[in-house]
Amino acid sequence: MTAPASVPAAGGRVLAHPAPEEIRLEGVLHALSDPLRLRIVRELAADGEELSCSDFVVPVTKSTTTHHFRVLREAGVIRQVYRGTAKMNGLRREELDALFPGLLDSLLGAAAHQEERLADG
Amino acid sequence: MTAPASVPAAGGRVLAHPAPEEIRLEGVLHALSDPLRLRIVRELAADGEELSCSDFVVPVTKSTTTHHFRVLREAGVIRQVYRGTAKMNGLRREELDALFPGLLDSLLGAAAHQEERLADG
Repeated sequence: MTAPASVPAAGGRVLAHPAPEEIRLEGVLHALSDPLRLRIVRELAADGEELSCSDFVVPVTKSTTTHHFRVLREAGVIRQVYRGTAKMNGLRREELDALFPGLLDSLLGAAAHQEERLADG
Repeated sequence: MTAPASVPAAGGRVLAHPAPEEIRLEGVLHALSDPLRLRIVRELAADGEELSCSDFVVPVTKSTTTHHFRVLREAGVIRQVYRGTAKMNGLRREELDALFPGLLDSLLGAAAHQEERLADG
């Protein structure tokens, strides 16, 4: 028996991710339609590196947080990889930019614009 | 008693719409996260004018169609107005462009890009 070719896991658990051709705009929009998930994506975009789930300070339970990261992963927005005992999260920026040119920056800009608008109000 | 100032209805039913300051990015993204609703918005954008619900040929029941238009209206994406017996639908393009500059065009572009990609595949 041979190991699956695509995912060298170094003995860790491997999480399922959609291939780029499986990612759908509707799924990405659904993933970003939740305020907390949108915030997670904004933080990942601002950081530019992988962050562990525990790097996010969120006002919900751990299982709810896990759910939100999973929705983002299954929509193809983030990649989740176990490194040792930590589950690390990274934005799939290059793949998203190739699939939907300009969209991610436009969404991030709209989210920043809204935040400023609501803070001013 | 005076009539509400904002909505001259000429005797017709008036449907509730969020004011621009009530429109939220998350709600817009949720409204567009459904394939049929995304298609309706693309048709309204391509047409540039108001369309009646019956102008859309959709593979679902009338009550499902009504539901989808309602989600779009309540998110602030479209404006629905009774004209005579017809319910007319128009994209709230100017207001959305003011709230989220560039976002709508970016979303429409991503949807067109995806359609081409899936047709090629």
